[in-house]
Amino acid sequence: MSDWDCPSSSSSSSLSTPLHPPPPFKLLLLRISSVSPIQGYDAWCGVAHGCTRKLGMKICGFLQKNNNLEERSRIVSSLKERTAKTLLSCDNIGGDVRFRRTETDFSNLFARDLLPAKNGEEPTMQFLLEVVEILTNYIRKTFDRSTKVLDFHHPHQLLEGMEGFNLELSDQPESLEQILVDCRDSLKYGVRTGHPRFFNQLSTGLDIVGLAGEWLTSTANTNMFTYEIAPVFVLMEQLTLKKMREIIGWPDGEGDGIFSPGGAISNMYSVMIARYKFFPEVKTKGMAAAPRLILFTSDTFTLSFIINIATDGRLFSQSHYSIKKASAALGFGTENLILLNTDERGRVIPADLEAKVIEAKQKGYVPIYVNATAGTTVYGAFDPINEIADICEKYGMWLHVDGAWGGGLLMSRKHRHKLNGVERANSVTWNPHKMMGVPLQCSAILVRERGILQGCNSMCAGYLFQPDKQYDVTYDTGDKAIQCGRHVDIFKFWLMWKAKGTVGFEQHIDKCLDLSAYLYNKIKHREGFEMVFNGEPQHTNVCFWYIPPSLRGMPDGEERRKRLHKVAPKIKAMMMESGTTMVGYQPQGDKVNFFRMVISNAAATRSDIDFLIEEIERLGHDL
Amino acid sequence: MSDWDCPSSSSSSSLSTPLHPPPPFKLLLLRISSVSPIQGYDAWCGVAHGCTRKLGMKICGFLQKNNNLEERSRIVSSLKERTAKTLLSCDNIGGDVRFRRTETDFSNLFARDLLPAKNGEEPTMQFLLEVVEILTNYIRKTFDRSTKVLDFHHPHQLLEGMEGFNLELSDQPESLEQILVDCRDSLKYGVRTGHPRFFNQLSTGLDIVGLAGEWLTSTANTNMFTYEIAPVFVLMEQLTLKKMREIIGWPDGEGDGIFSPGGAISNMYSVMIARYKFFPEVKTKGMAAAPRLILFTSDTFTLSFIINIATDGRLFSQSHYSIKKASAALGFGTENLILLNTDERGRVIPADLEAKVIEAKQKGYVPIYVNATAGTTVYGAFDPINEIADICEKYGMWLHVDGAWGGGLLMSRKHRHKLNGVERANSVTWNPHKMMGVPLQCSAILVRERGILQGCNSMCAGYLFQPDKQYDVTYDTGDKAIQCGRHVDIFKFWLMWKAKGTVGFEQHIDKCLDLSAYLYNKIKHREGFEMVFNGEPQHTNVCFWYIPPSLRGMPDGEERRKRLHKVAPKIKAMMMESGTTMVGYQPQGDKVNFFRMVISNAAATRSDIDFLIEEIERLGHDL
Repeated sequence: MSDWDCPSSSSSSSLSTPLHPPPPFKLLLLRISSVSPIQGYDAWCGVAHGCTRKLGMKICGFLQKNNNLEERSRIVSSLKERTAKTLLSCDNIGGDVRFRRTETDFSNLFARDLLPAKNGEEPTMQFLLEVVEILTNYIRKTFDRSTKVLDFHHPHQLLEGMEGFNLELSDQPESLEQILVDCRDSLKYGVRTGHPRFFNQLSTGLDIVGLAGEWLTSTANTNMFTYEIAPVFVLMEQLTLKKMREIIGWPDGEGDGIFSPGGAISNMYSVMIARYKFFPEVKTKGMAAAPRLILFTSDTFTLSFIINIATDGRLFSQSHYSIKKASAALGFGTENLILLNTDERGRVIPADLEAKVIEAKQKGYVPIYVNATAGTTVYGAFDPINEIADICEKYGMWLHVDGAWGGGLLMSRKHRHKLNGVERANSVTWNPHKMMGVPLQCSAILVRERGILQGCNSMCAGYLFQPDKQYDVTYDTGDKAIQCGRHVDIFKFWLMWKAKGTVGFEQHIDKCLDLSAYLYNKIKHREGFEMVFNGEPQHTNVCFWYIPPSLRGMPDGEERRKRLHKVAPKIKAMMMESGTTMVGYQPQGDKVNFFRMVISNAAATRSDIDFLIEEIERLGHDL
Repeated sequence: MSDWDCPSSSSSSSLSTPLHPPPPFKLLLLRISSVSPIQGYDAWCGVAHGCTRKLGMKICGFLQKNNNLEERSRIVSSLKERTAKTLLSCDNIGGDVRFRRTETDFSNLFARDLLPAKNGEEPTMQFLLEVVEILTNYIRKTFDRSTKVLDFHHPHQLLEGMEGFNLELSDQPESLEQILVDCRDSLKYGVRTGHPRFFNQLSTGLDIVGLAGEWLTSTANTNMFTYEIAPVFVLMEQLTLKKMREIIGWPDGEGDGIFSPGGAISNMYSVMIARYKFFPEVKTKGMAAAPRLILFTSDTFTLSFIINIATDGRLFSQSHYSIKKASAALGFGTENLILLNTDERGRVIPADLEAKVIEAKQKGYVPIYVNATAGTTVYGAFDPINEIADICEKYGMWLHVDGAWGGGLLMSRKHRHKLNGVERANSVTWNPHKMMGVPLQCSAILVRERGILQGCNSMCAGYLFQPDKQYDVTYDTGDKAIQCGRHVDIFKFWLMWKAKGTVGFEQHIDKCLDLSAYLYNKIKHREGFEMVFNGEPQHTNVCFWYIPPSLRGMPDGEERRKRLHKVAPKIKAMMMESGTTMVGYQPQGDKVNFFRMVISNAAATRSDIDFLIEEIERLGHDL
C-alpha cells in the first residue's frame, strides 16, 4: 500500500471507516499503534519521548538525521516493535503507561466486561477516560459564566423521566453507553455548586486540587480506622490536626482531634466529651448517673416561630441547630439546652450567660457546657469568646467553639482576631469544607485535652484494634470515633494545603471577605435595599432585603411585612427557574424573609456580585 | 522545510526536541494542531472522524482519492483551519471538546494557575489528566497479581520522610509537579484494598463503575440536605431506599430511611428512633423523663477480656461494638445494654433473650430494643430473626436488624433465607459498601414506620428548610438526619445498580459465598488448619487457626494456647512486610488469635484463595 493510503484502508486501524453508525460516546484519537510506518514517524518520536525520555530523545535525534524514505520506514517499523516492548517494560520498572483513548463501542459493553474481568483492562481504561471527559467538560463549563448555574426541574418532572433520563433501578444491567448517558444526565439536572455565581450555601466553589484529591481518595477506597489499612492518610490526619491546633493556639499543637462527617457530628462530639469530662460514669450508667445537666448556646428558632412571625418579635436564632440535635440525641433533652440572648448582630451577650448559669445552679441543675459560635450560619456573627471563656472558667464549664463556618478565619492574619480567645476553648469545630473551599466533606473536631476523646468513645473492639500488631497501634484512630468505618476526608485537604500553603488559604479568605465588604458597601445605601443589621458584617454573610418599588412607599406595618416576607422566596424561585445565580434566604426571629449572601467561592469576582444585585433587581422589580 | 522534516524543527510543535531536560510528568502525545500539513493527513482524518462524524467521513473519503502531494497539502491546511472551528462549534452545540494531553511543565505551575484563574482552563485540564493517568495506572496495577498489596512502612519511617515524601505542611505553596509526586507517593505507601488478594476487611475490591460514580460525585461537590442543591441525588436516594425496602419485604416498599456515614451511625439511628417511638419526651426532657431503658444485643467483648484470655472461657463477642457505642453516646449507659448468649456459631439464643427480658422487667426496667445481627463481624453469624421477632412482639420491643455486613445477601435468591424474618424488623442497617462492593462509604438505615425518623430528629431549621420554597419541600431530607451537611453517598450505588442490575449484585454475592465454601472445604481437613467452629459458615467469614508443625504434636493446654495465640499476629506481620496478601485475625472470647478470612472482593478467584493458604503455610511453617 502507498505510504499515503488513508489508514482506514488498513485492517488494523481504529481509524477505519465505521460500517455501522457510530454510537454516542464513540471516540477517535490517533491510535498510535495503527499509524502507518512512515507517516507515523513523528508520532513515534512522540511516543519515544513520552515513554523513556533519554532513549526517546536519542531515537528522535537519530530519526532526524535519516531522511531517506526507505530507511525511515524500516526504522519506524522496528521502533514500533521496540516501543511496544518499552511500554511494557516502562510499566514493569515503575514508570507509567500513557493512557490513550481509542474508539470504543460502549453499547455492547457492560459492567461485567470491566476489571476484574479477563481482558477488562482496555475497556476499563476507555470507560474511565470517557467518564473523565464528561467530568472535565463539566468542570470547564462550571467556570464559564455563560453556563447556567442550574437547569431546574420539579421533583415530579425528574421522577417522570426527563428525555430518557430514567431514575428507576432495574433487575437487568444497562450498557456502559447508557451508564455514560446517565452520568451526563445526572450532572445536567444537578446544580453547579462551583459556578462563580452560586452563593447559596456556606460550601461553594470547586477547588481543582481538592477535587484531584477526592478522585485519588475514592481510587484508594480505604477506611480511616487503622494505620494498617490507611497508613498515609492516618498520618496526614494526625499532622494536619496538629497544625490546626497550633493555629488555634494550643501550646505546641498538643491535644487531640478527629475528622468527622460534618459540623453537626463534630459539635455532637464536643457535647459527648464535655459530659465524659465531668461525668465519665454516664458512659456506663447512662444519664441517670448524672444530675440534670445544662448546655448553653445562642438562641435557635424553630418553624413554629416563623408561623408566628408577625406576632412574636423577641425570638431570634443564631447558633447552629446541631447543638439542639445533639442535646436531643445524647439524652440531655432540648429543654436542658438553654438559649442565650444575643445582641442585634447575633452575638451572645455574656451577662445573659452568667445570669442563666446562676439561675440554673440555683435550681440545682449542673451547667456543664457552653457553645460559642464563631461565625453563625445566618448573620456570620462571632460570639465574644474571651468573655464567655471567663464565665466558663469561673463556673467550671466546658467551652466549645463552633467554628464550622468561621474557623477558616484563623488562617488570616487580618481576620483571626474575630476568634480571639479561641485558644481558651476546650474543643473547637472547624470545617475546612466551608470557608476554606475544601470539597465536601471535611470537618474537624479539635480537643485541647489529650486522651479524653479516646476515653469517651473507646470500646476496644479486639477484632479491629489488636494490641499485638507489629506496628505502634497508638496510630489506630478508630476507637476514638463514634463511627467504625470512617471516610477518608483528610487527603484532599492535606493536598490543598500542600498546593496552596498556609498563605494560599489566607489569600482566599481575605479575598472572600473583601468581596463581601464590596457587596455591603454597594448595597447599604442603594435604593431598594435594606440591611438586616447595621454595620459591616463580621464574616462574609451579608443579610439584606430587596424592597420592590411597589413596597417602597409603604409605611412599616403588618401589611408591608407580610408582603415583604414573600419577596425573597419569589425572587429565589425565578432565579432558580432562570438558572442564572443562586442565593439563600430565610426569616430570622422577627425579621421576615431576607437574603443571606455568603461568599466562600474562589471563583467569585466583583462582577459576579454586581450581577447578583442586578439580577435581584431585574427579577424583583415588578413584585 | 521538507515534508519529512521532523516537526521538532518547527517552532510551533510540541514534539520539538526539548532544550531543557524534560521534567517528570512532562508528557507527549501527538498534538494534532502542530502536525505538519502533509504528514498530518491521517491525523486530520482522525480528527475529522472524531468531531463531526459524517463530515469527517466525507473529508476522509475525499482525501483518499487525492494522492497528489501538493493537493493534499492544500486540503489539509484548509481542513486544519476548518476543524479548529468545528471543534469550537462542537462545544457550542452541546457536544464536548475532546481532551488532549499536551506537554506541560508542572514545575512552574501552582494551584493559583488553575481554574478559576485567568487562562486556567488548559493547565486545569492537563493537571487533571495527569492525575487521571496516575490513578488509571494505579488501578491497572491493583488488579495485577504481580503487584504487591502494600509496601509496608512503620509510622516513624513515613513520618521521617520516605525518599522525599514529606508529609509536613508548609506555609508556602508547592508546585503542581510536587503535588503530582505527592499523589503518586500517597498511593505508593498506601494499601491496595482493591487487590485480588486483599481480604483484610469487610469492604474490599474496587468496582470501576462505583469508582466512576465517586469521581462524578466529588466533581458535583454538593450536599444531600435539600432538593434545591441536590435534586438528582435526593431523588436517587429516595428511589434506592424504596427499592431496598421492597427487597427487605416491607409492603410496597413503604417506610423511610436515610444514607448515613457508616454502619455505626446507622445503628445509632436505630437506637434513637426506638427510644423516640416509646419515649418521645426524651427528645425534649432528656433521659430523665424515661424509666431505666434496656437494650439487647449479642455478646460483645472488650480488650480486658483478651488479657484474661486464658482464664475466662465464657466470654464471647459477636455483635458489632457500635451498639455499645450508641448506648454510651445516647445516654443509656453501656450497663443497660444487655449481652445475649450465643451458640457455638455466634447466633443469639432466643430463650436467653426472653429470660433476660423477663429479668429486666422484674427489676422494674423497661426493655425497648433488640439488635439482631445479620452477619456478625467475626463469625458471619445470622441471628434467628423470626424467633427474636416473636419475642419482640410479645414484649413490645423494637427489633433492629444490623445487616451492615449480611444485608447484601438479601440480593441473592440462594442466600436470602438467612435473613428470614427481616421484614418483621422495625429498622434495618444495610451497608452496600461491604458485601455489595460499593466504594466507601455507603450505609443505609431503613425504617418501617414512615415519619418517625423525621419526628425523632427534626429541629426545623428555617434557614435550610424554608416552607415557602417553590418546590415540594417534602423532598428536603436534611431534617431527618442527625447531620446537617451530608455527603452524597448514593450516586455510586445507584450507578452500580443501573450498571449491574439486581442480578449483577446477586451474581457477585453468590460468587463470593461460593469462594468461601471453596476455602472452607479446602482447609477443613487440611493438615495444620483447624476450624474455629464446625460446619459450613453462613456468610463468607471463614475462621481458622494455622497450627505450625512445632505445635502440632502438643497437647491442648495453656502452653499451646499461649503459643498459638502468637502465631496469627506473627504471620500477619510477615505478610504485611512481604506485601503479598492481607487477612485479618483476632481473638474471640476464649479463642486465641485466629484468622478471619472474608470475601467481598469481586476480583478474588480460587487461585487467590489457594495463594492465601500457601502463603500462610510458607510464612508460618517455622514458627
